[in-house]
Amino acid sequence: MASPGFWSLGAENGGDSGGQSPITARAWCQAAAQKFTGGIGSKLCALLNVGEVEKSPDGAEKRHVENCNCITKPCSCSKTNLGFSELYSTDLLPALDGDLKTMTFLQEVVDILLAYIMESFDRSTKVIDFHYPNELLQRNNWELSDEPETLDDILISCRATLKYAIKTAHPRYFNQLSTGLDMVGLAADWLTSTANTNMFTYEVAPVFVLLEYVTLKKMREIIGWEDGRGDGIFSPGGAISNMYAMLLARYKMFPEVKEKGMSSVPKLVAFTSEHSHFSIKKGAAALGIGTESVICIKADERGKLIPSDLERRIVEAKQKGYVPFFVSATAGTTVYGAFDPLIAISDICKKYNIWMHVDGAWGGSLLMSRKHRWKLNGVERANSMTWNPHKMMAVPLQCSALLVREEGLMQSCNQMQACYLFQQDKQYDLSYDTGDKALQCGRHVDIFKLWLMWRAKGTIGFEAQIDKCLELSEYLYNKIKDRDGYQMVFDGKPQHTNVCFWYLPPGVRYLEDKVERMKRLHKVAPTIKARMMEYGTTMVSYQPQGDKVNFFRMVISNPAATFEDIDFLIEEIERLGQDL
Amino acid sequence: MASPGFWSLGAENGGDSGGQSPITARAWCQAAAQKFTGGIGSKLCALLNVGEVEKSPDGAEKRHVENCNCITKPCSCSKTNLGFSELYSTDLLPALDGDLKTMTFLQEVVDILLAYIMESFDRSTKVIDFHYPNELLQRNNWELSDEPETLDDILISCRATLKYAIKTAHPRYFNQLSTGLDMVGLAADWLTSTANTNMFTYEVAPVFVLLEYVTLKKMREIIGWEDGRGDGIFSPGGAISNMYAMLLARYKMFPEVKEKGMSSVPKLVAFTSEHSHFSIKKGAAALGIGTESVICIKADERGKLIPSDLERRIVEAKQKGYVPFFVSATAGTTVYGAFDPLIAISDICKKYNIWMHVDGAWGGSLLMSRKHRWKLNGVERANSMTWNPHKMMAVPLQCSALLVREEGLMQSCNQMQACYLFQQDKQYDLSYDTGDKALQCGRHVDIFKLWLMWRAKGTIGFEAQIDKCLELSEYLYNKIKDRDGYQMVFDGKPQHTNVCFWYLPPGVRYLEDKVERMKRLHKVAPTIKARMMEYGTTMVSYQPQGDKVNFFRMVISNPAATFEDIDFLIEEIERLGQDL
Repeated sequence: MASPGFWSLGAENGGDSGGQSPITARAWCQAAAQKFTGGIGSKLCALLNVGEVEKSPDGAEKRHVENCNCITKPCSCSKTNLGFSELYSTDLLPALDGDLKTMTFLQEVVDILLAYIMESFDRSTKVIDFHYPNELLQRNNWELSDEPETLDDILISCRATLKYAIKTAHPRYFNQLSTGLDMVGLAADWLTSTANTNMFTYEVAPVFVLLEYVTLKKMREIIGWEDGRGDGIFSPGGAISNMYAMLLARYKMFPEVKEKGMSSVPKLVAFTSEHSHFSIKKGAAALGIGTESVICIKADERGKLIPSDLERRIVEAKQKGYVPFFVSATAGTTVYGAFDPLIAISDICKKYNIWMHVDGAWGGSLLMSRKHRWKLNGVERANSMTWNPHKMMAVPLQCSALLVREEGLMQSCNQMQACYLFQQDKQYDLSYDTGDKALQCGRHVDIFKLWLMWRAKGTIGFEAQIDKCLELSEYLYNKIKDRDGYQMVFDGKPQHTNVCFWYLPPGVRYLEDKVERMKRLHKVAPTIKARMMEYGTTMVSYQPQGDKVNFFRMVISNPAATFEDIDFLIEEIERLGQDL
Repeated sequence: MASPGFWSLGAENGGDSGGQSPITARAWCQAAAQKFTGGIGSKLCALLNVGEVEKSPDGAEKRHVENCNCITKPCSCSKTNLGFSELYSTDLLPALDGDLKTMTFLQEVVDILLAYIMESFDRSTKVIDFHYPNELLQRNNWELSDEPETLDDILISCRATLKYAIKTAHPRYFNQLSTGLDMVGLAADWLTSTANTNMFTYEVAPVFVLLEYVTLKKMREIIGWEDGRGDGIFSPGGAISNMYAMLLARYKMFPEVKEKGMSSVPKLVAFTSEHSHFSIKKGAAALGIGTESVICIKADERGKLIPSDLERRIVEAKQKGYVPFFVSATAGTTVYGAFDPLIAISDICKKYNIWMHVDGAWGGSLLMSRKHRWKLNGVERANSMTWNPHKMMAVPLQCSALLVREEGLMQSCNQMQACYLFQQDKQYDLSYDTGDKALQCGRHVDIFKLWLMWRAKGTIGFEAQIDKCLELSEYLYNKIKDRDGYQMVFDGKPQHTNVCFWYLPPGVRYLEDKVERMKRLHKVAPTIKARMMEYGTTMVSYQPQGDKVNFFRMVISNPAATFEDIDFLIEEIERLGQDL
């Protein structure tokens, strides 16, 4: 921990109050209550007594149950002295007299979380304490039973859960496109949980609905749509946002499909690059279009869709009597981080009257950077765009937006006008009841963390954070491109933070038998990755692609990462792979 | 507040430390640091100094910037004395030296949240401080700008957001099927946010994936599937769970639909009661089946599907050459709380070889109650079931499960085997990489709050909570069924906690002109509801249904509600409606 002991109360040791004897703590409690009015004495008193324990000769922990002498009654001492081992969830609010117990319990949980956060940012701790599934099942009792457990057991479960969790905030966690933990975003998510409401109507989420409105408008302005006009919604992830876009494109061309289904329309075909995200095919399967109707367009060696191939395949499809209705360009592919040429694609879409969607789940956030937004030139011509702030902007999971240029389309495409939810005779402006735009009925509040982070950083703060990640990836690229034992998967500086490379350990590097060499190289990344997890030092992803054997895909979205962490990653790959 | 002042530090007043002078607080800080080792002194010291403010003669607040005399350095005093008005999010972790500032900031947020929780459970506070959208937009600056704001501004935004939020924990909040706030569930959601990971692979969510496995198995056991066998997933809400079920049913009958789309299959038809949830039609629209292919089956006067009508319509459809593939029975309809007769429906489904789905989003939780689970008799014969613990079990939003009897079907229906995520050469048992079962790629961790609440309550705790809500609704029913001015929408004791009724104010009650009476009665519920929101005293839903004019739909899922709150609701309806 960066600051050992500071928040140790109740963190690692189940509430040992930092070394002082219980007597001293009680004396403090009394003094606190006498010195202060207005509640602060009781607060201190409670903090001191939470988890005040004493080891009995047999080693078992005993909690003090004597009453304290606080002058303000009721104070929390007597209650918390009962100890969580004698309290159950039914003692918490809404239980009568449950307020102090609730506060104490929640504060204890927060102390555990704060300690975990401190630890997560500390490079000397493990990213993961890895165990195989069967092993992990045995390491703790995870079963559900008929009988309740004490709050003490609940706190133990919280600690155990965190002990075996991935520290996604760790500066050396690079495994996914979503990494890092933003402190303002976290605070906002805690608030969201506490507000515990649903996005479907203004009635039950007035502030959050307004903030969604404000934020979506801002995002559309950044895309470049006039006055930020258009529509949009936050959905449960990029795959669903992409599916929504496909649904809208189909409805726009054939509105009768909503009532009559696919049997009323000609054979539809969609187009996307061979490097695009699998959610385009998943969406097509779900929507009854079928994966075979998603035509994969060739990408160049950098992973960018080749516009001439797109046009050729569109013409071909039309000749067969199919109806091209949807092109999904990718702004930031998952593996290579490639940006499809949006202007050329938009020209083709316009020519053939096809809905142009931009899947910017990963790369969309580069619009926030004056230095890098040119990579999305042409996005303003799109009909819709997926943009996941939970990736490159490091907003806590989940936070994915679908932006749509045409107003009103989402509503007419998806609405069912349930009379018990979207009553037409409410007292307020019903355009704020946005729930019927979605396929979901209830919808989680994903907006507040993005909004609050945006307030805290400003657009320039996001820009700085994004630019820094790109700078780190360029540093990595420059460091390994000519380094012994490394081979880049594609030539040239990466456009996004994806750096794809093979590490060739000495035993593989000089092998002359090409087949044998590929066979062994294919196993290098999985082996090093498995070792990384065993040691828990860092985590980075790998995969094969097409005819290419397993390679590392390094991505940087973690705002905690530094140049030294990049150096560490390279050293660690070499350390763990030297014998392969 | 239940315990005024106790947690007032930083709550309502922006950090006024409870009345003591800053000098005293600093003296305390010094004493704390001297008396204790192991960090607790610093902790107290930090708490005392957070938001330590002094009013200058012109009324402006000034924060102390002098250094304290803590003997353990660095202590937090000097830093927190800087005040949040001089700190930015860039001062927090991962900033160098950001640990104490981070802790102090997060603790300040937690204090705001704890105060909000206390307030929410207090009946003397408003459920909502209602403002019309335009008014609310003007009450605060909600705009996003290029420049960052200070942490002080961020805290102010947090307070403003909560000020205008609905207090969903309030004992008199009855507006939706999801109400109340469980303290263990909340703690679990805070932990989930802190862990900030994704459910797609065991690699990045080892514990949560295991807990999902354990919990889904337990839920399947409770449904009555042998040894809890089967499959399932947590999805973003009941509407998506229902859509998944329809997707699986289609795939089971015509697996080629995944590749070839709806054009490869005959015309499919689905069946559900006219009282069922709108998500069945939304799902059919999305999946390319079309809303017209959802055949609405007549319900009886209590809202239950009539099996003979179901069979008649199935036969009719088959005669037309359509293929019936899906029946969605509802266990707990949204408005009436009706339970469709599952045994009779399952006989019909078996006879005609149709997938039987049970939408138990609202009523499924009654399976936890030995007293009420008979209402779902026959559910064990279903092929799939939607069950939303975020409704009747009061798990924080969102928490919706789809349970599926056949193993392996979800995987083959939805998988796309993305090689960058579901690598086949990982070191652990790949059956724990459950992400490819879903349409989503990233998937929010919804499991931990349910799992932790289940541990805290035990099955019997959930049972008691559910039984109590049903008892309260029976109390309400008995209270109003013969009361002057009330008319029940349907006869007999409700099966779920839905109590549907008209309140006829004196001015309407004795009107002889039937048409005029209906016209005026239609406006009663919306008017009373609007007044409830203006006063902020309670919230309950209303709607028309078929040819029935607007009536109140009272539902009880809020564990904080008591008999007195039911009495209050009736008094309030009468108070607010007496002049109508």
